[in-house]
Amino acid sequence: MMQETVITNANKAYALLKADADKILKLIQVQMDNLTMPQCPLYEEVLDTHMFGLSREIDFAVRMDLIEVEEGKALLDNLEKQLNLIHEKSQQR
Amino acid sequence: MMQETVITNANKAYALLKADADKILKLIQVQMDNLTMPQCPLYEEVLDTHMFGLSREIDFAVRMDLIEVEEGKALLDNLEKQLNLIHEKSQQR
Repeated sequence: MMQETVITNANKAYALLKADADKILKLIQVQMDNLTMPQCPLYEEVLDTHMFGLSREIDFAVRMDLIEVEEGKALLDNLEKQLNLIHEKSQQR
Repeated sequence: MMQETVITNANKAYALLKADADKILKLIQVQMDNLTMPQCPLYEEVLDTHMFGLSREIDFAVRMDLIEVEEGKALLDNLEKQLNLIHEKSQQR
């Protein structure tokens, strides 16, 4: 029972963090599709702030022993990679 | 045992969030003491970003059922009040 709860909490934590990462990706995708201004400083600022927010969430989850350090790092790295892809695509238009 | 773990986790979560709020307060206090430039846009940006980061942590803790919505709100409100006090003091110098 105890062990199950730990696993359930870890799964929930990861699912929440993944959903938040996806939200950032979606937000940026919508901005790219509609504004087509990836050089806009406001865009950079919004993205930086959201990335910082997610990194704080992940850091908190790690300190609560809900996810592993490596899991959190992979989540952020993966998001950054996908954001770079979106950015590159928008430059090619 | 089960119930104890829940309480321990809630206490730990609150302690971590409170420590993060205190860190922001300290950061701003140091900035005020040394830079004396509360009107600087960079200062506002740094503060906003840190407040956003903390609010994301708190939101995550609420969604994980680690703290109550009201507890999280009180933490942020209290931090904001203390920041306002620091700000006012710096204006009076």
